Amino acid sequence: MEAAFRQPNEEAMESKSTDFNHLTVLHNAMIVTMDSDSRVFRNGGIAISGDKIKAIGHSSEILLQFSASADHIIDLHSQILLPGFINTHVHTSQQLARSIADDVDLMTWLHHRIWPYESTMTEQDSYVSSLLCGIELIHSGVTCFAEAGGQHVSGMAKAVELLGLRACLTQSIMDCGEGLPASWAAVTTDDCIQSQKELYKKHHNTADGRIRVWFGIRQIMNATERLLIETRDNAIKLETGIHMHVAEIPYENLKVMNERKVDHGTVTYLDKIRFLGNNLLSAHTVWVNDNEVRSCSFLSRNGVKVSHCPASAMRMLGFAPIREMLDAGICVSIGTDGAPSNNRMSIVDEMYLASLINKGREVFVNGTTNPSVLPAEVVLQMVTINGAKSVLWENEIGSLEVGKKADMVVINPSSWSMVPAHDSISCLVYSMRTENVVSVMCNGRWIMKDKKIVNVNEEDVILMAKKACKELVERAGIRIPNRMNFI
Amino acid sequence: MEAAFRQPNEEAMESKSTDFNHLTVLHNAMIVTMDSDSRVFRNGGIAISGDKIKAIGHSSEILLQFSASADHIIDLHSQILLPGFINTHVHTSQQLARSIADDVDLMTWLHHRIWPYESTMTEQDSYVSSLLCGIELIHSGVTCFAEAGGQHVSGMAKAVELLGLRACLTQSIMDCGEGLPASWAAVTTDDCIQSQKELYKKHHNTADGRIRVWFGIRQIMNATERLLIETRDNAIKLETGIHMHVAEIPYENLKVMNERKVDHGTVTYLDKIRFLGNNLLSAHTVWVNDNEVRSCSFLSRNGVKVSHCPASAMRMLGFAPIREMLDAGICVSIGTDGAPSNNRMSIVDEMYLASLINKGREVFVNGTTNPSVLPAEVVLQMVTINGAKSVLWENEIGSLEVGKKADMVVINPSSWSMVPAHDSISCLVYSMRTENVVSVMCNGRWIMKDKKIVNVNEEDVILMAKKACKELVERAGIRIPNRMNFI
Repeated sequence: MEAAFRQPNEEAMESKSTDFNHLTVLHNAMIVTMDSDSRVFRNGGIAISGDKIKAIGHSSEILLQFSASADHIIDLHSQILLPGFINTHVHTSQQLARSIADDVDLMTWLHHRIWPYESTMTEQDSYVSSLLCGIELIHSGVTCFAEAGGQHVSGMAKAVELLGLRACLTQSIMDCGEGLPASWAAVTTDDCIQSQKELYKKHHNTADGRIRVWFGIRQIMNATERLLIETRDNAIKLETGIHMHVAEIPYENLKVMNERKVDHGTVTYLDKIRFLGNNLLSAHTVWVNDNEVRSCSFLSRNGVKVSHCPASAMRMLGFAPIREMLDAGICVSIGTDGAPSNNRMSIVDEMYLASLINKGREVFVNGTTNPSVLPAEVVLQMVTINGAKSVLWENEIGSLEVGKKADMVVINPSSWSMVPAHDSISCLVYSMRTENVVSVMCNGRWIMKDKKIVNVNEEDVILMAKKACKELVERAGIRIPNRMNFI
Repeated sequence: MEAAFRQPNEEAMESKSTDFNHLTVLHNAMIVTMDSDSRVFRNGGIAISGDKIKAIGHSSEILLQFSASADHIIDLHSQILLPGFINTHVHTSQQLARSIADDVDLMTWLHHRIWPYESTMTEQDSYVSSLLCGIELIHSGVTCFAEAGGQHVSGMAKAVELLGLRACLTQSIMDCGEGLPASWAAVTTDDCIQSQKELYKKHHNTADGRIRVWFGIRQIMNATERLLIETRDNAIKLETGIHMHVAEIPYENLKVMNERKVDHGTVTYLDKIRFLGNNLLSAHTVWVNDNEVRSCSFLSRNGVKVSHCPASAMRMLGFAPIREMLDAGICVSIGTDGAPSNNRMSIVDEMYLASLINKGREVFVNGTTNPSVLPAEVVLQMVTINGAKSVLWENEIGSLEVGKKADMVVINPSSWSMVPAHDSISCLVYSMRTENVVSVMCNGRWIMKDKKIVNVNEEDVILMAKKACKELVERAGIRIPNRMNFI
C-alpha cells in the first residue's frame, strides 16, 4: 500500500486549512457517496473548500476543473472514500470502565460496577475518558457521534473540540429511581432542566459548530413524568434533540405498565404523554410490540429515530426487531454503546454485527435465518445518512454531496483482511475491519492521517487513561475477582 | 509500544532456529498457560528448546536458570503470551471467494456461487487461496487449523508448509447428491476413499510433523451410507480424524428423517450407523435436539467434538445450543468457517462473537439474555485446549506446558483498542482485536514477528490472489450484481 499523503509541502498546507478559501482536491478514489441516487464514482474526485464539499465527480473532471486553483492535491491510489460514519449511541464517560463488568448479571453490572464508577468520576476523568473513546471512534472512521448521556459534559466537550470530532453531547439525567448513589439521588427535576439549559448555553454550537448539546433522559425508571414533559418542551424551544434509553429490558416494561397505567411498556407510555417526536433518539428499543413498531404506529408516525446497538443487545438486552422497524419506515442507525457494554468501540465491528445478528434473529421469527435481511447497502445507510437524520444533522452530513460538510473516511481495501473484494460494496460491511480505515476528515480537516491521530498524541492519552482509570476504580471501591490462578 | 524484537544479531539467530538444540528464552510477559490449573504468571518466562517448551515459570527463575545457555533472550515488555489459537473449521480453498455470495439465499450461495467456484479451481488456485487464508489466520494468532474439506489438498499442504502453520488437512468428499457440478457427480465411493488414502500417504506427518491428513465428509446429503462406514473404518485404521458438516439446516434433518428412517436428523442417524466417535469433528451442529445433545447422549457419550462457527451460524445456519453442549461435557471449539460464509477469517473476532451470541441466544431459551453465559475463560479454553482436543493433538498443543510444542502468540494489550484492561483475562475475549496480535510462533519458529509474516511476502501473495480470483470467477461464469449506481 502506498501512503495516501505524500506532498512535500504538506505541513505548510496543513497550517492553511483553517482558511475557508483553502481548496483541497482528493482524486483517484472509489467514492461511495451515499446520496439519494446511491451514486458510486469508480474513479472519483472531490474538491473541498474550507469545511465544505465544493464539487464531486469523476477524477478527470475534478482535476480538470480544480487542479490550477487547488492548494493541495492528494492521490488516493484507488482507495475508497465514504462519508464519515455516525455512531448514534456512545457513552464517552464509560471508556475508562472497559472490562470492568464482563460476564456479570445486570444488577451487578449496574449497581456494583457502573454506578459506583460513574458517580465517582471527576470532570478530568470524563475528559480523559472522552479522549480515549474519541481516539477509538476516529480509528473506526467515526466523524460524528451522539453521546448517550454521561457525566461532566464540559469534559467531553473539551475532548471533542481538541480531537476535531463532531458530536451531540448529552448529560446523564435522572430525577428519581431506586438504589441511586447518594450524590445522584439528591438531584431534583428542576436541577436536571436547569443544568442542561446551562450546558446548552455554554457549549451548543461551539468548536466551529461541531458541538451541539442535547437533552438527556437516562431511562424511564429514573424519570418522573414532569421531567419528561419539561424535557420535551425545552428541547422543542431550543430546537435540539433528546437522547434516551428506551425499552431495554422486560422488567422496565412491566414496571411502566404497573406504575404508569398503560397496556404495554415504555414506548406506549411515551406515546401517551406525547413525548415521542422526530427529535427523539431512542436507544436500543428492544422490547417493543407490534403496536409500537409497525407502520404508522407509535414510533414511525412520530418520526422517532432508533439507535440499534448490536453488541450490547446480544450481550445484555436482547434482539430488537430492526428488520421490522426498517420495513415500517423507522429511521434506524447504529451505535456502539459504552465500553463496559461492548468493549470494542468500533462502528466498523457494529456494522458487521448488525448484519449478522439480524440475519440470525430471523430463526426465531420465521424458523430459519435469512441471509438477505439487512443487506450491506442498508447497513451502510444506517451508519451514514440514517445516522445523520438521527442526530438531526442530515442537511450537512451523512452523504458526500456538494454543499455538505467535508466529513469523510478513506478505506484501504488492499490488505489481506479485505482481499478479494468481488463485491466492492458488501466488502465494506462484511470484510472491512477497523484497521482498514486509514484516514479520517471532519469539517474539512484531517483528524487521522495514515492511521495516526492528528490532534493528540495517542501514547500520551493511553498513559493518562491507565493512571486515571486505576485511581478511579480504587476511589469507587470496585473489586473485580480473578478468573484464573494468578501466580 | 516498544518493539518486542530488538536483538542486533537476530538474523543470525533465526538461521539457527532449525537446530533442535537452539534455546530461546522469552521473559517479562503475562503468561496465560491454559493448563489444567489455569495458571497465569503475572511476570512469566518460558524457555524453548528447538520446537518444544523446556521450562515455564516466573521470569526471574527462568532467566536465572537459562540466561547463560540461551542462544536468544527476548524481553516481551509486559505483553501477554498465550498458546497459539486453534481454528477448528476453515475452508482454505474458499479464501479467493470472499464477498462472492453476500446477502443471497442459501440455494444461490451454494448452487450459483460456491459450487461453480470450487469445481473450477485448480491446484494453483488452491495454493494461492490457502496462502492468503493462512496469512489472515496467522495475523489473528492461529497456529493450527482444521481444514473443513476443500479442493486440492496438495495445494493446501504446500501453503501450510511454507507459512510454517500446523494443520489437519481434509479433502472435500461427496459421492452422491442433487445438483452437483458434472466433474463432482462422476466421483464414486471408491474414488473418495482411494484419493484420501493417497493423500494420507503423501502428506500425513510431513512438514516436520506439522501436517496431518484427515478424512472428510462434506455433509450427509452428499454421502452414501457406504461412504460413511468406510470413512469411519479407514480413519480408525489410520488413527486419524474425520471432519464433517453436521445438522446445518432444518431441511437436512427432514431429508435424513425421510430417507434414512430415523426419528430426528443427522446426529441421530450417525449414531444409528455407529459413525459417531471421539475422532469425529462435527462442524456447526446447529439443529440438534435434547436427545442428541444432553449429557450421556449421542454426542457426549461418543466423545464427538463440535466446532462452533458463530459468524456463519448467525448469518446462514442458526444458533447452536453451545451452552447446553458445554453443560453436557461436549468438547466445543471455535472455527471461522470459510470466507464466503464469514468474510472475516479472524479467530479473535469469533471469540468475541461466540461470547456475545450465546449470551443473546438465552433470550430465546429463557426470556432474557444471560450475560454470564460463556464467560471469557471458557471462550479461551475453546480456542486453545478444546481446539487441541478437537484436532486430536492435545498431547502436544493447546496449552503452554513443559514438553508441549512451542506454539504461542504474543498480544500487545497497550493500544487504544484494549486500554483499560481492568480484567486482564476478559479483555482477551471482549476487547482484543486481530491487530493486537503482534507475533506468532509455531513449532518453535516465529511465523509472524511484529505483525510481519515471516515466510512469505504478504504483498506478493495479495497480488497473486487478486489475479487468481478474478480469473477463477470469470472461468466459473459467476456474476455478482451491482448494489449501487456505479458511474
